[in-house]
Amino acid sequence: MKNLKLSASRPDGARTVIDVGGVKLGGDFVVIAGPCSVESEEQTLRTAEAVAAAGAKMLRGGAFKPRTSPYAFQGLGLKGLKILEKARRETGLPVVTEVVDTRDVSWVGEYADVLQIGARNMQNFSLLREAGRSGKPILLKRGMHSTLEEWLNCAEYILAEGNGQVFLCERGIRTFETYTRNTLDLSMVPAVKAESHLPVFVDPSHGTGILGMIEPMSLAAVAAGADGLEIEVHCDPSSALSDKDQQLTPAAFALLMDKLRRLRAFMGELG
Amino acid sequence: MKNLKLSASRPDGARTVIDVGGVKLGGDFVVIAGPCSVESEEQTLRTAEAVAAAGAKMLRGGAFKPRTSPYAFQGLGLKGLKILEKARRETGLPVVTEVVDTRDVSWVGEYADVLQIGARNMQNFSLLREAGRSGKPILLKRGMHSTLEEWLNCAEYILAEGNGQVFLCERGIRTFETYTRNTLDLSMVPAVKAESHLPVFVDPSHGTGILGMIEPMSLAAVAAGADGLEIEVHCDPSSALSDKDQQLTPAAFALLMDKLRRLRAFMGELG
Amino acid sequence: MKNLKLSASRPDGARTVIDVGGVKLGGDFVVIAGPCSVESEEQTLRTAEAVAAAGAKMLRGGAFKPRTSPYAFQGLGLKGLKILEKARRETGLPVVTEVVDTRDVSWVGEYADVLQIGARNMQNFSLLREAGRSGKPILLKRGMHSTLEEWLNCAEYILAEGNGQVFLCERGIRTFETYTRNTLDLSMVPAVKAESHLPVFVDPSHGTGILGMIEPMSLAAVAAGADGLEIEVHCDPSSALSDKDQQLTPAAFALLMDKLRRLRAFMGELG
Amino acid sequence: MKNLKLSASRPDGARTVIDVGGVKLGGDFVVIAGPCSVESEEQTLRTAEAVAAAGAKMLRGGAFKPRTSPYAFQGLGLKGLKILEKARRETGLPVVTEVVDTRDVSWVGEYADVLQIGARNMQNFSLLREAGRSGKPILLKRGMHSTLEEWLNCAEYILAEGNGQVFLCERGIRTFETYTRNTLDLSMVPAVKAESHLPVFVDPSHGTGILGMIEPMSLAAVAAGADGLEIEVHCDPSSALSDKDQQLTPAAFALLMDKLRRLRAFMGELG
Repeated sequence: MKNLKLSASRPDGARTVIDVGGVKLGGDFVVIAGPCSVESEEQTLRTAEAVAAAGAKMLRGGAFKPRTSPYAFQGLGLKGLKILEKARRETGLPVVTEVVDTRDVSWVGEYADVLQIGARNMQNFSLLREAGRSGKPILLKRGMHSTLEEWLNCAEYILAEGNGQVFLCERGIRTFETYTRNTLDLSMVPAVKAESHLPVFVDPSHGTGILGMIEPMSLAAVAAGADGLEIEVHCDPSSALSDKDQQLTPAAFALLMDKLRRLRAFMGELG
Repeated sequence: MKNLKLSASRPDGARTVIDVGGVKLGGDFVVIAGPCSVESEEQTLRTAEAVAAAGAKMLRGGAFKPRTSPYAFQGLGLKGLKILEKARRETGLPVVTEVVDTRDVSWVGEYADVLQIGARNMQNFSLLREAGRSGKPILLKRGMHSTLEEWLNCAEYILAEGNGQVFLCERGIRTFETYTRNTLDLSMVPAVKAESHLPVFVDPSHGTGILGMIEPMSLAAVAAGADGLEIEVHCDPSSALSDKDQQLTPAAFALLMDKLRRLRAFMGELG
Repeated sequence: MKNLKLSASRPDGARTVIDVGGVKLGGDFVVIAGPCSVESEEQTLRTAEAVAAAGAKMLRGGAFKPRTSPYAFQGLGLKGLKILEKARRETGLPVVTEVVDTRDVSWVGEYADVLQIGARNMQNFSLLREAGRSGKPILLKRGMHSTLEEWLNCAEYILAEGNGQVFLCERGIRTFETYTRNTLDLSMVPAVKAESHLPVFVDPSHGTGILGMIEPMSLAAVAAGADGLEIEVHCDPSSALSDKDQQLTPAAFALLMDKLRRLRAFMGELG
Repeated sequence: MKNLKLSASRPDGARTVIDVGGVKLGGDFVVIAGPCSVESEEQTLRTAEAVAAAGAKMLRGGAFKPRTSPYAFQGLGLKGLKILEKARRETGLPVVTEVVDTRDVSWVGEYADVLQIGARNMQNFSLLREAGRSGKPILLKRGMHSTLEEWLNCAEYILAEGNGQVFLCERGIRTFETYTRNTLDLSMVPAVKAESHLPVFVDPSHGTGILGMIEPMSLAAVAAGADGLEIEVHCDPSSALSDKDQQLTPAAFALLMDKLRRLRAFMGELG
């Protein structure tokens, strides 16, 4: 609609499709699910098996957690990555995990199938460049303070290194509203599609921070045309070390997945 | 979720349903459509007939336009109300129109079926009280700077006058994002349902300000559980005296209505 | 800096000076002080005498209070205006009071020297027009969600009715920051001066909502070039019916006034 | 005022003073000045000499520039650091420069006296930790989307590594206002002083983005109690490779410095 003159924003017909172990991001509808943090082998494997059984196509889980306070749980690091690797072996789900330091990009990339750049690091340009050089598929979340134009420019930092495997995820922006944790800006779904050729996902877990809103906002994201969702699921949310109040149980996730699949199929017929 | 201790926010089982000439707000799914401004009899009647034919259940149209500049078109006033009255006679559609002055509430209420309080007047408490005293159904739009709690408190100003016929409409809030005219906060749909017993609508026209986003955001609003939509339609958008870039043509509106009806029916099955 | 093409924004050399009973707004440095609400004759007279003794040039006090909840104290109305009138007789201070309803503009104008349009009514265009027609000096506060351009356009609604006696007051905008009640945007002081010929005041009481910040932000406003301040003072803040936590005691106000006078004099020398 | 329970936020009487080559941050009033970017030896030396002559106590200049677009000038890197080192030798001014990558902290620290963490990296927790471990004085700018509490928690990441030499700089937050580049939140000056023992600076150049606002907002910052300012100065702003519109000429800077010194002295007397 506007011409941002980026390679990310020149839709010349073809849209980007990223193949991750047979999962087609931007082609199939894909749900990425898993715990906020990798806390233990048992917690991760149980959750991974549950989300796989419910139809998730990828496993998410944080080994490096960017936390507001230095005294909060910071993630298991390498140990967490090894747990994720085991979860992938057992479930077959490709793994998405966040990387937060330029020094970690290359070795984290040996454990993960997709590297996530989180909202707080969206404009960590060194990290974006290193992610670009890694050649791995990159999930770039929107900064909580970022305009569409800035977000697409950050994708461009990765593309400019010759790595075309970038997909985006709206996760809520910061506004004056305090009822929700963030304001989930679903208008970014059609906006990204209009301005770029990259797949666009939605994260209703961080985007609302309220358990009861994950279902309606997930359904809304599908209706708006999102290519996929990233949803936090924990085998025992009440014991979680982070994001305790916004992680679904496996049972709730399975019910949601059933609705999402049916809605997605219906949207395909609707045209 | 939070307990706001308002009569608007005490859901004791029953939800409010408002009957406007047989249209059940909060019961049926209702699309309110029509031009931003009433500009002439011909423009209004042509648009009204088109939206009625496409399945809209109510007609919107502004006779008093709150405009940023005093030198912009301010609406036709009484003449506009008489045109709306004629459109109602010819199409059978109940009329929703904005009232902006306490002195006008009573006589505007003789022409309109529903009085709209616009975003800029959400916290015009005198106007809210007068609207409450009118006994008419009231459509209360969310202020572009308002929290959920403030919005429900404004509904409470009307309820406190003994008028229980209030329904709400999310129309986008003001954020740092400049790509869209406002940031349409669809999370207010489940939030209003959780915190109150009032019907909640969505206005994707003001909420995005971008023609190409009205369809995806309307579908998303339905999937999120909205009770209805308010959409700007103009028989000849390029000649409109206000909101030229966000009013649908009758043809585009008819296509959208078909999708909305089908999606709404599907959502009913989805449960 | 930008050319907004308004009569408010065409500085052709001369700046507006408004004479209110000998007080020169836009000429002298003027502090408007008094309670948030007129609560009783004793409270208002005691506060008025104290602020007069400390050097305030005008008395503020609300008789009609726009409150978030309909169940909060709404002001004394006519009774409050009569108390303000008495306070003016006893202290000689001209009175500034808020008007919230078009129907009240004319009769409130018989009690008050200056009519205030509050933040929530900044875009109540009917009220602006009525204020314009009243011929009274108008204090127009910035809406908590309003851009400079919208604010100046609201001034223009008053000017367009032939009333040139308008002055503006920055009172904080709504942002994501929750530490302060609002974010006081002092950059509006030089911005209003660059873009218009109208006097610009600052309200550090609503702008911060924190007692300990009123002094530093008042001094900052003077250094930025504000033409005056509007400050809440209450003879017994702990008993106040509204804004209990942000009203200065008379003693604190007197100390602040001394600093403000000295800083203002120094700024005059600094040039 | 609130008790954030951080080591940064426990003011037990003593406030932090950081000695950088004899300059006492948090003790003396300190102006840090220099170009946005180091562009050439001549540009940097000319600017450094000018700001030293006008009374700046430290030199700023970016060798690594975090730019919205990957195709914008990204800084001279090591070559820029060598130019800054030379400027320090010739003027005696300690050097402040931004570091954007954990891998660079240690070697950049050999060229710079103070490491700056910029707004976009405020929550780059890896970088904060590495900065903590460096033992160098750290200038931590506020993220454009960050609350006071988050900002102090980021300082805590540095303090928790045993590095107590942290000072903060308010540089404007992102709001709906588009007239200014950011909204400079001067209320953070008293807020930081109330909630922590760390020195607090203000950056009016990025905070407003408008040349004519730098003087009034700098004066306001001093009146609010800031410990210092960071101001962009360029020997030839019209030729600058970044921030062309907000860099002062040496002549304008010298005039401003004279006013700042006089105001600061006056504020000392005011008490």
